[in-house]
Amino acid sequence: MTRLSSKDTQYWLDTAHALADASGAVIAPYFRRRLRIENKAEGRAFDPVTAADKAAERAIRKIIRERHPDHGIIGEEFADLAGSSPFHWVIDPIDGTRAFMMGMPIWGTLIGLVHDDQPVVGLMDQPYTGERFWGTQKGAFARSVDGKVKRLKTRSCANLSDAILTSTAPDMFKAGKEAQAFSQLSATVRMTRYGGDCYAYCMLAAGHIDLVVEAGLKVFDIVPLIPVIEAAGGIVTGWDGSPATSGGRVIAAGDAALHAQALKRLSE
Amino acid sequence: MTRLSSKDTQYWLDTAHALADASGAVIAPYFRRRLRIENKAEGRAFDPVTAADKAAERAIRKIIRERHPDHGIIGEEFADLAGSSPFHWVIDPIDGTRAFMMGMPIWGTLIGLVHDDQPVVGLMDQPYTGERFWGTQKGAFARSVDGKVKRLKTRSCANLSDAILTSTAPDMFKAGKEAQAFSQLSATVRMTRYGGDCYAYCMLAAGHIDLVVEAGLKVFDIVPLIPVIEAAGGIVTGWDGSPATSGGRVIAAGDAALHAQALKRLSE
Repeated sequence: MTRLSSKDTQYWLDTAHALADASGAVIAPYFRRRLRIENKAEGRAFDPVTAADKAAERAIRKIIRERHPDHGIIGEEFADLAGSSPFHWVIDPIDGTRAFMMGMPIWGTLIGLVHDDQPVVGLMDQPYTGERFWGTQKGAFARSVDGKVKRLKTRSCANLSDAILTSTAPDMFKAGKEAQAFSQLSATVRMTRYGGDCYAYCMLAAGHIDLVVEAGLKVFDIVPLIPVIEAAGGIVTGWDGSPATSGGRVIAAGDAALHAQALKRLSE
Repeated sequence: MTRLSSKDTQYWLDTAHALADASGAVIAPYFRRRLRIENKAEGRAFDPVTAADKAAERAIRKIIRERHPDHGIIGEEFADLAGSSPFHWVIDPIDGTRAFMMGMPIWGTLIGLVHDDQPVVGLMDQPYTGERFWGTQKGAFARSVDGKVKRLKTRSCANLSDAILTSTAPDMFKAGKEAQAFSQLSATVRMTRYGGDCYAYCMLAAGHIDLVVEAGLKVFDIVPLIPVIEAAGGIVTGWDGSPATSGGRVIAAGDAALHAQALKRLSE
């Protein structure tokens, strides 16, 4: 992780909190309302975009452009904005759009700040429950539904046979090698569950889940979660051990030994 | 639904709320703590029982026995208690034990009251977020995280191709005919998602999900949800159209026309 000064880290984290406050206020009225769902994809595939998604990203971008017009922005809903500064923001206004549509409170707003290609601030906000998770070089923390803030720490789990594995959905893995690799890993763990989205990575950081393994991720699906996972003591990479910052096939583990075992299993 | 008087219905609903208040207070301190997980099942299968499960059911049973010693009780954790009254309670202290273990806030405490084999009060409580869902002959309602209470109403969805389908996990269906029937149904709907437990039935009652299809349910997994679903305008039965009160293979739909189509698809 790039070492920013403690003061700078706090400043950027405060900025991320301000962005989350703004986006949460925008999204909240849309949650559990009957929504008009646009369909971005052609034909059979279903890629819903809600009005909430766009409104929230617009609110976040507006604040960034006003405060830091030199910063770049990568977001889900609008075109990338190049900046002249070493900083750029990575935003997913609603990670888990399907969970959102279904009224399940396990979607989140992801806000990340990258400095010289290194994620330095990461934040996940759940505006319906009031929960928020964030990480910087100063540590990872969570605000609970009751407003209390606690430090996050992954748990140790040295063996695949003891691990709890999650993934957002079985159909996120391409049929063939990718799906087979996941099945092979799934067959060796204690328990596999689906349906987590960003919330599952936060529960890994909190020490309740051991592995999150996914595929087909976009940059904004994972970059804002990297500081949360790493500052909590976890490790997150591609399935080949490469940096997770480019998305695609991603594996997060709470325990480095487990990460190594799972990588091996995925490549067999 | 058995027609109790309006006053009686309110009395029994108030009792169910009191039971949920008591169980929620017992469970809350256990959620997101590092727990000792017992393993009820032999060998490979993983059937976790937490201390929270037992403590909560004990608290609920104590109140029922004190107030209504003639009532029967069916609960997940302890032996059935036969009663001399036409009323019996059906309790699952933590429906979604796996979600609970993983820190996901989509498990719930299920409390149902049955009169002459008809579920007359049903309640789902999520003590971490403060949400609660309930149904009686007077209607279905939800208390949100902010304490506001709203009436629940399922949505119309006349075609399988438009439906959002959920199920707790793909591995709940027995390999062979059962899994094939689910796959066949899943292939015709707009979207299938996993990981809901009791929360998904409540979101169906709230009009955000169209179908919940599951198998291998115990009586206490479904009976307390029946009044919530039905009072919201939904329909819940076995896969063969029989009453859902005996558990097993269950299908809930927000729209009766959709229910008929899905039943047909499952039997093909």
